Amino acid sequence: MERGVKALKALVVGRLQQVKLQSGLSYNQIAEKTGLTNVYVAQLLRRQAQLKPHTAPRLRSALPQLSEDLVEEMMKPPMRSYDHDLIQEPTVYRLNEAVMHFGESIKEIINEEFGDGIMSAIDFYCSVDKVKGVDGKDRVVVTFDGKYLPHTEQRSEDMVSRISKEK
Amino acid sequence: MERGVKALKALVVGRLQQVKLQSGLSYNQIAEKTGLTNVYVAQLLRRQAQLKPHTAPRLRSALPQLSEDLVEEMMKPPMRSYDHDLIQEPTVYRLNEAVMHFGESIKEIINEEFGDGIMSAIDFYCSVDKVKGVDGKDRVVVTFDGKYLPHTEQRSEDMVSRISKEK
Amino acid sequence: MERGVKALKALVVGRLQQVKLQSGLSYNQIAEKTGLTNVYVAQLLRRQAQLKPHTAPRLRSALPQLSEDLVEEMMKPPMRSYDHDLIQEPTVYRLNEAVMHFGESIKEIINEEFGDGIMSAIDFYCSVDKVKGVDGKDRVVVTFDGKYLPHTEQRSEDMVSRISKEK
Amino acid sequence: MERGVKALKALVVGRLQQVKLQSGLSYNQIAEKTGLTNVYVAQLLRRQAQLKPHTAPRLRSALPQLSEDLVEEMMKPPMRSYDHDLIQEPTVYRLNEAVMHFGESIKEIINEEFGDGIMSAIDFYCSVDKVKGVDGKDRVVVTFDGKYLPHTEQRSEDMVSRISKEK
Amino acid sequence: MERGVKALKALVVGRLQQVKLQSGLSYNQIAEKTGLTNVYVAQLLRRQAQLKPHTAPRLRSALPQLSEDLVEEMMKPPMRSYDHDLIQEPTVYRLNEAVMHFGESIKEIINEEFGDGIMSAIDFYCSVDKVKGVDGKDRVVVTFDGKYLPHTEQRSEDMVSRISKEK
Amino acid sequence: MERGVKALKALVVGRLQQVKLQSGLSYNQIAEKTGLTNVYVAQLLRRQAQLKPHTAPRLRSALPQLSEDLVEEMMKPPMRSYDHDLIQEPTVYRLNEAVMHFGESIKEIINEEFGDGIMSAIDFYCSVDKVKGVDGKDRVVVTFDGKYLPHTEQRSEDMVSRISKEK
Amino acid sequence: MERGVKALKALVVGRLQQVKLQSGLSYNQIAEKTGLTNVYVAQLLRRQAQLKPHTAPRLRSALPQLSEDLVEEMMKPPMRSYDHDLIQEPTVYRLNEAVMHFGESIKEIINEEFGDGIMSAIDFYCSVDKVKGVDGKDRVVVTFDGKYLPHTEQRSEDMVSRISKEK
Amino acid sequence: MERGVKALKALVVGRLQQVKLQSGLSYNQIAEKTGLTNVYVAQLLRRQAQLKPHTAPRLRSALPQLSEDLVEEMMKPPMRSYDHDLIQEPTVYRLNEAVMHFGESIKEIINEEFGDGIMSAIDFYCSVDKVKGVDGKDRVVVTFDGKYLPHTEQRSEDMVSRISKEK
Amino acid sequence: MERGVKALKALVVGRLQQVKLQSGLSYNQIAEKTGLTNVYVAQLLRRQAQLKPHTAPRLRSALPQLSEDLVEEMMKPPMRSYDHDLIQEPTVYRLNEAVMHFGESIKEIINEEFGDGIMSAIDFYCSVDKVKGVDGKDRVVVTFDGKYLPHTEQRSEDMVSRISKEK
Amino acid sequence: MERGVKALKALVVGRLQQVKLQSGLSYNQIAEKTGLTNVYVAQLLRRQAQLKPHTAPRLRSALPQLSEDLVEEMMKPPMRSYDHDLIQEPTVYRLNEAVMHFGESIKEIINEEFGDGIMSAIDFYCSVDKVKGVDGKDRVVVTFDGKYLPHTEQRSEDMVSRISKEK
Repeated sequence: MERGVKALKALVVGRLQQVKLQSGLSYNQIAEKTGLTNVYVAQLLRRQAQLKPHTAPRLRSALPQLSEDLVEEMMKPPMRSYDHDLIQEPTVYRLNEAVMHFGESIKEIINEEFGDGIMSAIDFYCSVDKVKGVDGKDRVVVTFDGKYLPHTEQRSEDMVSRISKEK
Repeated sequence: MERGVKALKALVVGRLQQVKLQSGLSYNQIAEKTGLTNVYVAQLLRRQAQLKPHTAPRLRSALPQLSEDLVEEMMKPPMRSYDHDLIQEPTVYRLNEAVMHFGESIKEIINEEFGDGIMSAIDFYCSVDKVKGVDGKDRVVVTFDGKYLPHTEQRSEDMVSRISKEK
Repeated sequence: MERGVKALKALVVGRLQQVKLQSGLSYNQIAEKTGLTNVYVAQLLRRQAQLKPHTAPRLRSALPQLSEDLVEEMMKPPMRSYDHDLIQEPTVYRLNEAVMHFGESIKEIINEEFGDGIMSAIDFYCSVDKVKGVDGKDRVVVTFDGKYLPHTEQRSEDMVSRISKEK
Repeated sequence: MERGVKALKALVVGRLQQVKLQSGLSYNQIAEKTGLTNVYVAQLLRRQAQLKPHTAPRLRSALPQLSEDLVEEMMKPPMRSYDHDLIQEPTVYRLNEAVMHFGESIKEIINEEFGDGIMSAIDFYCSVDKVKGVDGKDRVVVTFDGKYLPHTEQRSEDMVSRISKEK
Repeated sequence: MERGVKALKALVVGRLQQVKLQSGLSYNQIAEKTGLTNVYVAQLLRRQAQLKPHTAPRLRSALPQLSEDLVEEMMKPPMRSYDHDLIQEPTVYRLNEAVMHFGESIKEIINEEFGDGIMSAIDFYCSVDKVKGVDGKDRVVVTFDGKYLPHTEQRSEDMVSRISKEK
Repeated sequence: MERGVKALKALVVGRLQQVKLQSGLSYNQIAEKTGLTNVYVAQLLRRQAQLKPHTAPRLRSALPQLSEDLVEEMMKPPMRSYDHDLIQEPTVYRLNEAVMHFGESIKEIINEEFGDGIMSAIDFYCSVDKVKGVDGKDRVVVTFDGKYLPHTEQRSEDMVSRISKEK
Repeated sequence: MERGVKALKALVVGRLQQVKLQSGLSYNQIAEKTGLTNVYVAQLLRRQAQLKPHTAPRLRSALPQLSEDLVEEMMKPPMRSYDHDLIQEPTVYRLNEAVMHFGESIKEIINEEFGDGIMSAIDFYCSVDKVKGVDGKDRVVVTFDGKYLPHTEQRSEDMVSRISKEK
Repeated sequence: MERGVKALKALVVGRLQQVKLQSGLSYNQIAEKTGLTNVYVAQLLRRQAQLKPHTAPRLRSALPQLSEDLVEEMMKPPMRSYDHDLIQEPTVYRLNEAVMHFGESIKEIINEEFGDGIMSAIDFYCSVDKVKGVDGKDRVVVTFDGKYLPHTEQRSEDMVSRISKEK
Repeated sequence: MERGVKALKALVVGRLQQVKLQSGLSYNQIAEKTGLTNVYVAQLLRRQAQLKPHTAPRLRSALPQLSEDLVEEMMKPPMRSYDHDLIQEPTVYRLNEAVMHFGESIKEIINEEFGDGIMSAIDFYCSVDKVKGVDGKDRVVVTFDGKYLPHTEQRSEDMVSRISKEK
Repeated sequence: MERGVKALKALVVGRLQQVKLQSGLSYNQIAEKTGLTNVYVAQLLRRQAQLKPHTAPRLRSALPQLSEDLVEEMMKPPMRSYDHDLIQEPTVYRLNEAVMHFGESIKEIINEEFGDGIMSAIDFYCSVDKVKGVDGKDRVVVTFDGKYLPHTEQRSEDMVSRISKEK
């Protein structure tokens, strides 16, 4: 994407992380105060999600250090992106490893249980939770919860854009 | 994906193309007989889409050469894929060129007109049409028509999978 | 391309986006005022297209904040390019996904309906439209409309450059 | 990995899929009969996991078509791998998109809640579930549940292999 | 592209090269007999170009060994492609080197002499010629001769596909 | 990962290397004073590992030039990463060469001696030692010592996160 | 190549382009005044070619704004390079497309007409010309004219470096 | 490398693995019988190392199923190679992760303790061992033991090949 | 390159290696009998060089097992290529390492000693020799000996192809 | 490698090149004054090799402009690296082309003449020389002269690091 966009995003994220640091709050604590999932809060503070009008007041009260221009910036649709080197980070690699090694199995189970469709990554929730395993040891639970989207059958009569064009 | 899956897909597509050749019909003609878009018909005959039960009879009557085992195979959710070298084909390259060079502009207009979301490629229609330009010359019109999907705000109270987990 | 070119382009785009922001106009609104497609306006303001002399006055009147040196810069043939990471953006990825998964089908339909040729990406129009689907929900329609270019048969007598060389 | 290994794996997986097809059971049904997660069953039938001795009888009774040589093969440690093109499949791409776009956030929350460590992909569970969203629509829930592994501090006195070397 | 397509193409090219070998003719000799450029003849015999109806008789008479089924196959629009390893061949590498090192200069001269547009690779001629240099030594002359295509200004009123949609 | 994170890491590492330079100590000497492996000390001073509270005093006394803000920074979980060009360095290439050429053998021996599992890179020690070979020449010994992690069998009854979800 | 070299080249090219802009001359006009091909002039002004002593006076008189230090810099052998993204530019892509799709044919014709050798890209001329096609429309002609270099047969008696070594 | 070489290697390795299977011996057991490291035995049986004449008898007696033509084949210098997908295997990935994340530290320690040189991967030993950690759990120890090779200072008087050339 | 070409090349090379094996001769011995460099002999027997008519008799007498159809095949201009995985072979990697790490230095010395030009890889000799180092140990000497090719100044009056075109 | 290291290296190289420029000496002239090969001098001045204590005085006297801090810097073990784009430079590409196209032949000749081993790139000399070919034309001779390193047989009794571990 255009350079200015990337540079601005980096700048804003730097300032948002500063605000979080000053607040002394964890993502979980901000999540509790705002009613959002912990991952979504982290996405908001890294400009990977848009702050919605009805949530802005709750975020402002959770993070009083947040200036108005930052809130305004957070309310714009972000340019979603990531650094390719992120795959080097052991935590991210292992998640990626699971997706690639289990991917075909996950797809087939979705097909069996839902039909020919996918799990949306847009109408989507993600959380990180801590549970105790059967051996009493801590376990990380990452939940991906996305709407089931069936592949549409492309019938001409349902393709509104084409009907109008044909007239 | 697993080798057998790829090999089987190639085999089935080869047989489907043979059936189409024998029928002497174009994709447009099959589209008309089945009420599907021309691109979707081509996707069906290359195992990139699933044949739905209510459409099977219409396809069978359009292509009487289609054997029952092929129809059965076509009704399974396909493993969607493409050959990387396809990008070498001038037609496909130019479509890709348009998407990459215009992509950021398209995203921004979607943001302005719809909000923070995307055009679904799953609830999606595609057609290829022929029109005369203002200079009277033939033009190719490729229409991409996908449902608008807004990025969800990930609120804990709406994340059903998490609520149940917390109980 | 040469570094200075890239840096200058980034600078100019940054200033053009600033002008648009100050105008408070959307791409659609500028499109209406200038008689251009919405995507083309966005391309102009990102230096991916050349501003033509007869359009300059209309753009100036739509965006009075536009300084003369910016207009002059916009009238030069641009160096067309994109950031590779753009493919990460979900909107752009899904367009790319559609092109690669449907590409071979689109090519074959062009061959059947037009002959052995391609859709030009140079004599080309693109627009983003909003329609209501049969379920009453918003849909994004991206239209690619390019001149059909038949692959020429390379006959020696028609190859002017060679004839002259042979003399 | 060595060619013979890959070819043998493809062959075995082809036969295992055949067995599943003949049984008429879904992954979920086999999971229920064997007490395994649905994803793990799918991994077993694609030779991405090792069949354990105490589970073999249950799998044999769930899939009576399973021949002894297949069971024996399934009990060997597999060579884990995947086809790079799997990323083209829309389902797998979206999971990957989620991991890469949310990855840094997930890492930071793990750091805040657990410390400097990762979610293991080896001491790991994965399941695919179906839930109803707050809008009553079907949702896919993919759960990744891995043991928390703290990065060890590498103290010389605890490095047994070095101590013995120094003696 | 789909596997069968690639395999069939390889098979047909193998047979075409056999025909050429049996004829004992060079590409230049066939070019002379058919009125085509030498490069185009080579493209035809490698299924990188479509044989046109009015040229078929001339090719048949130049290469009497050509069977009817091959001629028929040659008259279909080909799937254009190349092997990536071709870049290893010193001849092809040096052409590529010239294009990449001189590319920006060529673009700028086209802009200065023609305007904001490109050299078409579709309405295009290519030939290989032998000339004597000023030092009397043999030189290879590769001529690329393509139609100049100006980038269109995308005016809404000229976008036929859109007008009809708006009605 | 986010730009600010990378820039900050580079800055901190630059300062830490400066501290080491001023101390005049080698990694081995610091390792001896702190009871850590030599590689781990180097990782700490390049922000690839987290300084633990009980080790901080020993590091401070080994490197009195270390300022408090650096110590604080070192105690945060780092973002682990490396520069891709590192593979060009002959030392690193040869280690990589050994891993890739011997990798399949190492895996098979682990399978034979331990079972279906891996060597953890998280619960892990690494050291570089100097020994005399049988020819009396210096040899470099790099030891990788990681906990054996068996691939878990994913039994539903042991998947705590799923049990709670089902309730 | 080393960073300083790249930075200096970018700086010099920026200044050279400035000089050209001030002169108001096109590459063709400078070519005419200096007796060089238009592409070579453009290469000189982008530091992709070395300015020869006997040409320096002619370039100085064509571009009187050229300072002595720039002329001196231009007389050094340049570090030839290009930006990978240049392939995105439609003009450059289409040249590359032609080379890759026609490459094998060009090689074979060179083999037939010249023998086992290549077209040099070093003893090489390139020009961009404008011609009218048989339809009266403008066409771009890019000519690549390189010395034919036969692959040498490597006879020991002709390998001077080896003979001397053996003595 | 040339195709036949690869195919032959795969064939031979397949047969060697068969021999090992029939023997019922582990790599460790063969290592003990032959006096080789366990990794080296595995390399021999995968044609990644050359069987030396004095070791052939011991290997023959350890693996009596080994036919003479296999022994002969094993005594040729192998073409060393690996499958790129091996990096997907979790065991191999973690070794690679360790090398890349610790690589710069390992290099610096070698520089401090030995000087400006590297660990050879040719005069090299590798073993996999099992030890009990301080917590009594099994640990995998992979030892890389390579000769230290100092980078030579390239003095003309020591460059024998050049001296002879100059004479 | 086209598949048949690759498959044929592999087949021919396999047979040529068989002939060499039967002859019991080393490359050096064949080199001595034919007056070619040892590397060139190896290239001939791997179809990376063309057998010249005056050398064919000498090769036939050195390798009487060589059938006439193989000799004929060897006299055709080869399609030069290599397997990408060759870079994995330690010998080839180290040559490549030397070229890349020393490349810029070699270029600058050529510039200083010869001018703005390159070492040809076409008018080129290569040999592998064995010498004793000053320490009495064996050393491998690889000599690359290529004609110096100066980059031409592209003067219009010397560009024969263009002159004729202008007439 | 870490950013500061790269930036410092670039800075130092820039200063070293400045020193060379001021001295007015060529690499060959410095080589003669210091007794080093010309390539090694160039490597020293680009921080790709370590300046040895006994050579420092000779370099200082050859280049009196060399400041003490530069000499000190040059005496540290360098981080060896190169810019990937270097492969674009025609001189470097042709060397690389030779290595890749001749690589397998060179390996096989080393195997025949020396045994199963490689040419070291560490105990290594490189020079660039100018010779007259049999046609009286200038030729570039690049000599690679590296110690022969046999692949060790990995016998347990010779693996000192393991023996000590077992005790």
